[in-house]
Amino acid sequence: MENFVYGRNNVLELLQNSDRNVSKIILLEGMKGNSKINQIVDMAKNKGIIFQFLSKEKFIKFNEISHQGVIAYVSPVKYIEFQDFLNKKKDKYKRVIITDGVEDPHNMGSIIRTAVCAGYDAIIFPSRRNATINATVEKSSAGAINRIDLIMVNSLPSAIDKLKDNNFWIIATDINAKDNYYDIDYCNMNFAIVMGAENEGVSSTILKKSDFRIKIPMLTDFNSLNVANAASIVIYESVKQLIQKSGNVV
Amino acid sequence: MENFVYGRNNVLELLQNSDRNVSKIILLEGMKGNSKINQIVDMAKNKGIIFQFLSKEKFIKFNEISHQGVIAYVSPVKYIEFQDFLNKKKDKYKRVIITDGVEDPHNMGSIIRTAVCAGYDAIIFPSRRNATINATVEKSSAGAINRIDLIMVNSLPSAIDKLKDNNFWIIATDINAKDNYYDIDYCNMNFAIVMGAENEGVSSTILKKSDFRIKIPMLTDFNSLNVANAASIVIYESVKQLIQKSGNVV
Repeated sequence: MENFVYGRNNVLELLQNSDRNVSKIILLEGMKGNSKINQIVDMAKNKGIIFQFLSKEKFIKFNEISHQGVIAYVSPVKYIEFQDFLNKKKDKYKRVIITDGVEDPHNMGSIIRTAVCAGYDAIIFPSRRNATINATVEKSSAGAINRIDLIMVNSLPSAIDKLKDNNFWIIATDINAKDNYYDIDYCNMNFAIVMGAENEGVSSTILKKSDFRIKIPMLTDFNSLNVANAASIVIYESVKQLIQKSGNVV
Repeated sequence: MENFVYGRNNVLELLQNSDRNVSKIILLEGMKGNSKINQIVDMAKNKGIIFQFLSKEKFIKFNEISHQGVIAYVSPVKYIEFQDFLNKKKDKYKRVIITDGVEDPHNMGSIIRTAVCAGYDAIIFPSRRNATINATVEKSSAGAINRIDLIMVNSLPSAIDKLKDNNFWIIATDINAKDNYYDIDYCNMNFAIVMGAENEGVSSTILKKSDFRIKIPMLTDFNSLNVANAASIVIYESVKQLIQKSGNVV
């Protein structure tokens, strides 16, 4: 399933905002006339992409995915080299999310989606014990994976050292932190927010390397936010601060 | 699947914090010795609940769900009558989430989970065109559905009228709103935040009845937050304000 993109909004997003190579699009016969399906067909025609309407029977093998009547065969998503990202010039500060062992592809996709809405620059994730960018991640991201730099690294601790050498501040989420996520100032610095694994949180090695540790306060003893929701809460605190304090944000 | 609860944390949460009737627990043979499985077995013994270790073969029919080796057969989740919720006495203000057509059970569960972490009092949802509280919702909520008042109503507009009659302020999320979600004051009032359907947002009928409309600002043209993430962002703005301004919050 690596090289599929499915779902109407996702395929539209792919055709509109990605330079990935689409080799073929298949569509469900019964969906002819749907406005988004029409849009997809028009774009395919414009771009000279082969497309084909298929019967329900031919779509049976895709029943397990919520394809909404359209599947695009596509070249794999492009990662960017870490060093190339660091070398990129930017007038404003760079903002990054690091996932340290986020294994659920829905969570991974959802985090990327929020990061893109918030104008973040990159997602950094380790090559092992973390979801890779597959079709499920792409679907959960609503196509956002095409709008942000994706950086896969072999060693997260080394990547963090390198970020620090490049004037990034490292902010780790930690259930035992003293500071709340809104106690720190996200403006006027390059920063990377580290989100941890679904059960274990951010690993101790990474916590030790962090400049800030922040927690999300709980108002009950039920201390169990979903990691993608937790990421959204922190990311949007940074957005709010950037809008309120800097004015000029992206 | 309605009357199952699956997953180790979920079953533990159920045994610890719910008064629902558990008729039987089945466990995967290979999981014997796992510390959480042991905990579940101990609690089952204490409570006199029948439990049984079964072979991998007997678990095959549950392969599609991420049961982590444990499934509890349980009485359906209890809803509370809307009027009973309104009649409840509370020293502090009541805080409620309304879902107006959230159809994905993962999103529904995830919203409930955040609401419980934030000490909210209830979730109100319509009986039609909204996810009902099933096993998937329960799993996605990490068991949080047992910690909050769940209120199913036949008519959301009538429910909102009734909330207003009972001194609740209605805050609707609306992509076209002028105010940002952090521009309003969540303290010192009973309020209900309305989250809309995944694609259409809050319906126009409900928008018209709302006292406040709020949006989550986007820093790119990619305007597509997941509804559960959007809910988390707004819910936690209220938490932050409550902690910062009121001190005494729950």
